[in-house]
Amino acid sequence: MRMVDLIIKKRDGHELTDEEISFWIEGYTKGEIPDYQSSAMNMAILFRGMSKREIATLTDRMEHSGEVIDLSDIKGVKVDKHSTGGVGDKTTIVLGPMVAACGAKLAKMSGRGLGHTGGTLDKLESIPHMSIAKTKEQMVEQVNDIGLAVIGQTASLVPADKKLYALRDVTGTVESIPLIAASVMSKKLASGTDAILLDVTVGEGAFMKNMNDARELARTMVNIGKSLSRDTVAVLSDMSEPLGMAVGNSLEIKEAIASLHGEGPEDLMELCYTAGSIMLVQAKQAKTREEARKKLHEVIENGEAFNKLLAMVKAQGGDVDYILHPEKFEISKNIIEIRSEQEGYIKEIDALGIGVAAMKLGAGRETLEDTIDMSAGIVLAKKVGGYVKKGDLLCTCYTNKEDYADVLEDIKASYVIVKEEVKALPVIREIID
Amino acid sequence: MRMVDLIIKKRDGHELTDEEISFWIEGYTKGEIPDYQSSAMNMAILFRGMSKREIATLTDRMEHSGEVIDLSDIKGVKVDKHSTGGVGDKTTIVLGPMVAACGAKLAKMSGRGLGHTGGTLDKLESIPHMSIAKTKEQMVEQVNDIGLAVIGQTASLVPADKKLYALRDVTGTVESIPLIAASVMSKKLASGTDAILLDVTVGEGAFMKNMNDARELARTMVNIGKSLSRDTVAVLSDMSEPLGMAVGNSLEIKEAIASLHGEGPEDLMELCYTAGSIMLVQAKQAKTREEARKKLHEVIENGEAFNKLLAMVKAQGGDVDYILHPEKFEISKNIIEIRSEQEGYIKEIDALGIGVAAMKLGAGRETLEDTIDMSAGIVLAKKVGGYVKKGDLLCTCYTNKEDYADVLEDIKASYVIVKEEVKALPVIREIID
Repeated sequence: MRMVDLIIKKRDGHELTDEEISFWIEGYTKGEIPDYQSSAMNMAILFRGMSKREIATLTDRMEHSGEVIDLSDIKGVKVDKHSTGGVGDKTTIVLGPMVAACGAKLAKMSGRGLGHTGGTLDKLESIPHMSIAKTKEQMVEQVNDIGLAVIGQTASLVPADKKLYALRDVTGTVESIPLIAASVMSKKLASGTDAILLDVTVGEGAFMKNMNDARELARTMVNIGKSLSRDTVAVLSDMSEPLGMAVGNSLEIKEAIASLHGEGPEDLMELCYTAGSIMLVQAKQAKTREEARKKLHEVIENGEAFNKLLAMVKAQGGDVDYILHPEKFEISKNIIEIRSEQEGYIKEIDALGIGVAAMKLGAGRETLEDTIDMSAGIVLAKKVGGYVKKGDLLCTCYTNKEDYADVLEDIKASYVIVKEEVKALPVIREIID
Repeated sequence: MRMVDLIIKKRDGHELTDEEISFWIEGYTKGEIPDYQSSAMNMAILFRGMSKREIATLTDRMEHSGEVIDLSDIKGVKVDKHSTGGVGDKTTIVLGPMVAACGAKLAKMSGRGLGHTGGTLDKLESIPHMSIAKTKEQMVEQVNDIGLAVIGQTASLVPADKKLYALRDVTGTVESIPLIAASVMSKKLASGTDAILLDVTVGEGAFMKNMNDARELARTMVNIGKSLSRDTVAVLSDMSEPLGMAVGNSLEIKEAIASLHGEGPEDLMELCYTAGSIMLVQAKQAKTREEARKKLHEVIENGEAFNKLLAMVKAQGGDVDYILHPEKFEISKNIIEIRSEQEGYIKEIDALGIGVAAMKLGAGRETLEDTIDMSAGIVLAKKVGGYVKKGDLLCTCYTNKEDYADVLEDIKASYVIVKEEVKALPVIREIID
């Protein structure tokens, strides 16, 4: 078998056999197939697509390119959750404790964030002494004990995906739906979960800019899960404006804590209830999504969800004082309020604009070497649909930098305010199962 | 400027600016842009194509990626000829002396052949002591002296093309018409010629399998030439059956000698007359193609064309005795006749089948390290349209190998013989200028 023949086959629109996909992924992982052939293959896949079978096989081969975690020592159905990312996305930190409080087992391995704001791991690390470096054995023990762990991905997981993703990033082949789907699902499958809830975000602040692409990606991932015998459901959620009010690492942790106290923003809570009710059914902790939703409301009201966060932070070495007294989190030196220059309804808060602005204030990494300022970010005062008078607060910016003047202009430019009444955006766009 | 953004731009169907194409080709030549980005770009170009302007700019930048030969010391209009290759293609060795005998100046730099049979350089080297390694100064002197030189391409010519071609070969991007056209034309332009005659072969034994592709490639190359102020004309010629009768290095030299004595096969001569008459007009040695054709017939009849070949072989150190007495060429140890097993008209002689068979008999290289057996090959007895009885000679095979039995079967399988009368194929399919 020669790699060039497989490239030509895909380029000409033919399906690759399972053996051919194995040859590529195994050869590439071992370094026997060079980057320049894989990049040509990726581009051919971007143009020609892949069949359901090809995508399932690709995912399976990527999953098995390295270590595959065996979670069979955890009792019960293990559920996992993955989001395709967005701005202000602290869902895992609220949703995880909620479903764990209802009896589900969540053993989640996360990656680092690169871009607007930190990833879930970065956000958790804004809690002093919180450790996300755990062995598989420690994770199993913790999940058996409290039902919940969120840790960093081990380096030995899906090496094929690591190489392929780095290559796609510099060769213009990130946007291929089969390749995105295989990348996400291979990581989830290698993490050893039984069931997967996918949060596919859609809108300017997300990877998928429109519903058609988001739907195709969601369907593709659900199909992969089913082909490989994992219960997989996808929620399509809005990411045209930021999720919730807070954007930035410790700012989001504080919002997550408030949410677990029953004071969460409507869109974030609706996403957590919808995703959580699906996960509880997947985890066999409820018969129907309605029953599950009730349970989720209960654990918010009776404080059990909050207690799960406390338990997780404690189990992972974090300082629980910060969870009990969020006012302890360090606050940025500079706090700047941005106020409306006109009266009307907020029609748009460009999620990408806010995300990039938060990054520039210090909340995110432009390169992997950058360090994150945990206290930096933006807190919205109102969301899309909100009414403001001239001089009303739009949002508050937090930063330790001094050269933030341009960023404030970028933030103002992210708002569109109109005379006509505007409806709030529904956060749940569609469920695909 | 970042290469990944240029890949994405082309991938999404947009035109690259001249500056962007320069950035790519200069960066890639210097090794600043890695193979894996160039291969993704090549694949994006294969799918998206390029505009006339993009192709002209790409050709120009490739031409200027290395040394550009200055032939201004040669008096008169310099013409060059390029064929996209085929089986039995000894055109240059017949056509070169013909046009030189009519006063045109032909300073031709050729590449090595890889595939079925040797390239023109290999064929010339079957003449003992013939040298194709000449300096530019020696070439200029020879062309001023006798009007004709065929030498090897210097290593410093079009380094961008050398790198890109090697990459395309292993990444499934050979078949892109803009890339083929830029590759061919950049080499021709860098060789310093004023006018170019392109022989675009079409059919199973050629790179372009059908007329549409051949026409598109020819038009693309003619457009490049015109954009860059070189008089460029393309002849589309048939390559469904081998050109002429002989396939194999010294066998083809003997056929070329016979052709210059007026005993050439009809298709080869028609191609030489057609291409030659265009070249003589380009070289301002005739006003019309009709006038040029007459001159070409004259130099065949009066022996001046043959004398030019003699002069070239002498100037390049070859043993002219072999040209004067072609029976001196060594003959293979094994001579095998293949005879028809049925009666009828020859409908097909698969050029690719014959080419690969000749290679297996020793006439070509499978890898660049292989050495060629100059005496090996195949000589057809009849062409498409010919009538054979059972037992009539189809062709004669020459080889020094002993394990040729399978090859004979392949050769037989290259013939299709039918009851109904079959017309000979016209060798000239179209002229594009």
